[in-house]
Amino acid sequence: MRLLHVIGIGAGDPDQVTVAAVKAMNEVDVFVLIDKGSAKQELVDVRTRILDEHVRRPHRVVEFVDPPRDRTPRDYDAAVDTWHEARARALGDLLAAEPDDAVGGMLVWGDPSLYDSTLRVVDRVRARLDDPFEVRVTPGVTSPSALAAAHGTVLNRVGEPVLTTTGRRLREDGVPDGVDAVVVMLDSDCGFLALPDWHVHWGANLGTPDAVVLAGRVSDVGEEIMRARADLRRRAGWVMDTYLVRRPIGR
Amino acid sequence: MRLLHVIGIGAGDPDQVTVAAVKAMNEVDVFVLIDKGSAKQELVDVRTRILDEHVRRPHRVVEFVDPPRDRTPRDYDAAVDTWHEARARALGDLLAAEPDDAVGGMLVWGDPSLYDSTLRVVDRVRARLDDPFEVRVTPGVTSPSALAAAHGTVLNRVGEPVLTTTGRRLREDGVPDGVDAVVVMLDSDCGFLALPDWHVHWGANLGTPDAVVLAGRVSDVGEEIMRARADLRRRAGWVMDTYLVRRPIGR
Repeated sequence: MRLLHVIGIGAGDPDQVTVAAVKAMNEVDVFVLIDKGSAKQELVDVRTRILDEHVRRPHRVVEFVDPPRDRTPRDYDAAVDTWHEARARALGDLLAAEPDDAVGGMLVWGDPSLYDSTLRVVDRVRARLDDPFEVRVTPGVTSPSALAAAHGTVLNRVGEPVLTTTGRRLREDGVPDGVDAVVVMLDSDCGFLALPDWHVHWGANLGTPDAVVLAGRVSDVGEEIMRARADLRRRAGWVMDTYLVRRPIGR
Repeated sequence: MRLLHVIGIGAGDPDQVTVAAVKAMNEVDVFVLIDKGSAKQELVDVRTRILDEHVRRPHRVVEFVDPPRDRTPRDYDAAVDTWHEARARALGDLLAAEPDDAVGGMLVWGDPSLYDSTLRVVDRVRARLDDPFEVRVTPGVTSPSALAAAHGTVLNRVGEPVLTTTGRRLREDGVPDGVDAVVVMLDSDCGFLALPDWHVHWGANLGTPDAVVLAGRVSDVGEEIMRARADLRRRAGWVMDTYLVRRPIGR
């Protein structure tokens, strides 16, 4: 393979891809879609819909089955490292089977720059090669941007810093001093419940017809969010949520 | 006016707008472009190029001249408040002159959810009206995403929080404890120079033909960045830069 496009596709709505992403997709001979198991089949389906909508040239789609991952490791960083290495081996084998002049494409939810391991794994694949393929990244709309747009709000209050973090780090470390606005991604445990006085802007399955958004003081809307989350899981089969929490200090 | 589209247009490249943004632009009767004075004329020009490229229906463009702003106030928050109120008055007068069934559009660099005052000013305009127009926000690619894509990097290391802040807040408050990755926007003073051991990914005028990116340890590349910044200002007439700084702690 000579070139790999890593393409951010936004929150799921086929219209949320950029014109540059559409152009990049239309240079691709073979798309590698990462299959994370049946629970995430819907996520693969959304990507397939995006290809159907935007790609007008012949192409193949290869599903890459992720190697298993230790979800409850003793040493989190080491477990992630082992998993990335296994993924890099598997992805490297898959790409090596493509012709030398082929152009590959990987579609990333949201944007490849935030809590996504695609570029890290691709770097590992390249490090194993004498003459590695080129990588071009097309940025996409992040889920925090999609969340803020759905609420018609701005993430930061005037001049305020905003911390972006994961549910795990919020639970383990809390909110750093001096930070009054936090965007949380990858939290399946509603970590905002630990901040009852804070104001939450919550959204799930943004960019899909099932999208739900709720906002208010955590102590007022927390339970409603948990119910909406459970409903959505039943209805859509999956939940991918993002939220903004802000300390209550004026506007 | 019955509806106002607030549309994120990405970092400047007409291809970096989303399909949804193109659709929204093609519903607009009158675009309001904020003119920030001659130094920023190029920024208005980029928006005009984006309209030329993507809008296929008759529309008008109104330039909104921003009221003057106190750039060295004693009380920063109060000065911002006064300025936003003056902007809301002026924008309200401008929109009130449009027909009742008109659809307005405002184009926002990057994404309206991050360090942009458009939605705040629009909220103030709506608060003055008995029967306010509807607002729809179309999210766009942020400059941090464009920066990361240009460098082919991920903003966070594995699982790491990322703080997004302004040059002013970085100078005044430093980096909060527990934060090892910071994205800085709106910094005309190269605040990264205060962190000589940190690693910087810097980019300016991203999404334009003049884009420049540099990366390395601040103590190694800091001066080169300052020279590149000065060059760019001479060449392009303006500089809009964004950078990521990371504490040196492994990968």
